Amino acid sequence: MKIAVDAMGGDHAPGAIVEGALQAAGAFADVHLILVGDEKQIRHHIVGDCPDNIEIIHTTEVIESDEKEPAKAIRRKRDSSMVIALELVHEQKADAVISAGNTGAFMAGGVFITKRIEGIERPALSPIIPSIAGKGTLVLDVGANMDAKPENLLQYAMMGTVYARKVMGVESPRVGLLNVGTEEKKGNELTKEAFVLLEDKLPNFIGNVEARDIPFSVCDVVVCDGFSGNILLKSYEGMAAAIFQVLKQEFTSSVTTKFGALLLKPGFRRLKQKMDYAEYGGTPLLGLQSPCIKAHGSSNAYAIKNAIGQALRFVQSDVIGQISKEVLEQKRGNDNE
Amino acid sequence: MKIAVDAMGGDHAPGAIVEGALQAAGAFADVHLILVGDEKQIRHHIVGDCPDNIEIIHTTEVIESDEKEPAKAIRRKRDSSMVIALELVHEQKADAVISAGNTGAFMAGGVFITKRIEGIERPALSPIIPSIAGKGTLVLDVGANMDAKPENLLQYAMMGTVYARKVMGVESPRVGLLNVGTEEKKGNELTKEAFVLLEDKLPNFIGNVEARDIPFSVCDVVVCDGFSGNILLKSYEGMAAAIFQVLKQEFTSSVTTKFGALLLKPGFRRLKQKMDYAEYGGTPLLGLQSPCIKAHGSSNAYAIKNAIGQALRFVQSDVIGQISKEVLEQKRGNDNE
Repeated sequence: MKIAVDAMGGDHAPGAIVEGALQAAGAFADVHLILVGDEKQIRHHIVGDCPDNIEIIHTTEVIESDEKEPAKAIRRKRDSSMVIALELVHEQKADAVISAGNTGAFMAGGVFITKRIEGIERPALSPIIPSIAGKGTLVLDVGANMDAKPENLLQYAMMGTVYARKVMGVESPRVGLLNVGTEEKKGNELTKEAFVLLEDKLPNFIGNVEARDIPFSVCDVVVCDGFSGNILLKSYEGMAAAIFQVLKQEFTSSVTTKFGALLLKPGFRRLKQKMDYAEYGGTPLLGLQSPCIKAHGSSNAYAIKNAIGQALRFVQSDVIGQISKEVLEQKRGNDNE
Repeated sequence: MKIAVDAMGGDHAPGAIVEGALQAAGAFADVHLILVGDEKQIRHHIVGDCPDNIEIIHTTEVIESDEKEPAKAIRRKRDSSMVIALELVHEQKADAVISAGNTGAFMAGGVFITKRIEGIERPALSPIIPSIAGKGTLVLDVGANMDAKPENLLQYAMMGTVYARKVMGVESPRVGLLNVGTEEKKGNELTKEAFVLLEDKLPNFIGNVEARDIPFSVCDVVVCDGFSGNILLKSYEGMAAAIFQVLKQEFTSSVTTKFGALLLKPGFRRLKQKMDYAEYGGTPLLGLQSPCIKAHGSSNAYAIKNAIGQALRFVQSDVIGQISKEVLEQKRGNDNE
């Protein structure tokens, strides 16, 4: 199983990326990693001999995280680590690709270089949102496409169901529609129409779900337009960050509170772990012909290792074959109506 | 200053509502409260003589919090505490109205009974979102209207600016547009168009703001369509609730953690206070001809007292007069273009 890794993308690249790759190369059986990036910089982070199951492909350019026009960067920087890594999967020289680099560029590159699955109108950026119990909730879409039509949400639901079952290990994934209330007629024009369509076409649709219930595992897959999904994701991040910041201030304010915080340290560690993106691996870009995983920009080695493990499950379980099959069946069903 | 209070609305009505009114009657100068609801039940919660500045208007019906069709309930239950309270302000027998009852019914009743300000196309439900510093952030709209046009967002911005300055005491309110990134061209069709309009017409517009930065006081007023605003608000609520639930489990898991939690109790109290809706009073429904304040459904007496204080500032500072004036100026400006 060959995984192409963009070694130059991310806040801690290439150090954390190389370190994560080394960990994964030791931990997972049958993995072959292709580190794409500046060879000298990559080698600098490999102490001793390079393991047999890691190879390096040298590139000369880097797409920066603050690139002004990410989509153009993909077309312009032809010898960047991200473009070459994406081309490797497109040319079937690798089975999957991972990058912690610029999200906009990776999404654009995913569509331009690896192409969409036939019949999938729009790919979806699909992170797992932490929940206090269970395996987290897969949300599609959080920003690959800002506006969406009801038919897109139906495809997101189908893709999310396949991914949740095959990669997250959820036997019977429950799909919810992100909305402002649980009643059927709630919402805006999009959600009202989408509700009717999902109810009709999706056997595992459980109805509308509210943003405040998602961290409590109310369902396994949530579908929404990319704008709303992005607001959802960043609201969770912002509130968690705000609470942790206030707690930190409070807990370091005196000797007494520092002692109290020491006693509670294991509990805090478990809480942070529950809320930590690194535990959930990276974010798949679903709807493309190859498995493309966007790791968090601030990924450490542990997050990269987890993202590689996730890429392996993604490939082994043939998510893309299953999505292609179901989109074809959907199309046939529509043609027969 | 006469404030009509729907004594029968809310999870803890009428007890908490009457108790909050009694506290406010003692705390605020020049306040006269009209408690609207079942007289017998209201009197049951008044120990001893009723203060001179509280009067009771008896009603026989109640709009329930789980009313299936809230808007119809407003038309049907003509002798409900909420309808009569709203009519009191419309007939200028009260200066403001407060209800902790059914939100949908209160919004519908606000528009049907008290009417919109001339020139305001859509009213906005405008809660204050807690922030870790400062006075919180006013968000318009979180669900009075699901879909919005750029012109609506401009009116929300104008109304929010007036309210933040006059009631929240923010000298120069900064208005942000809720979006998926801070760059100018980000977002969906609505935000792209709204950005251009706000940039052109609103001197205190600071640009796009992201959901993750709002709890850190990145601006004083946020404008968005009601669907997105509702997702934002409920995501914050959900994540805070999830974190507090995990912390509670962790902190009560052993004698050691219980002792640690005891040492940190004042810090937790301050955190909860920072995140507590009750501290911020109720949610104004802006754009109506009378001050209408929706208190949280789970309001305790303290929250009701704060909402009454807020209603007093709302009336005294003539927010509605100022909004009427600015909407007229906006209209003149447009006509001259």
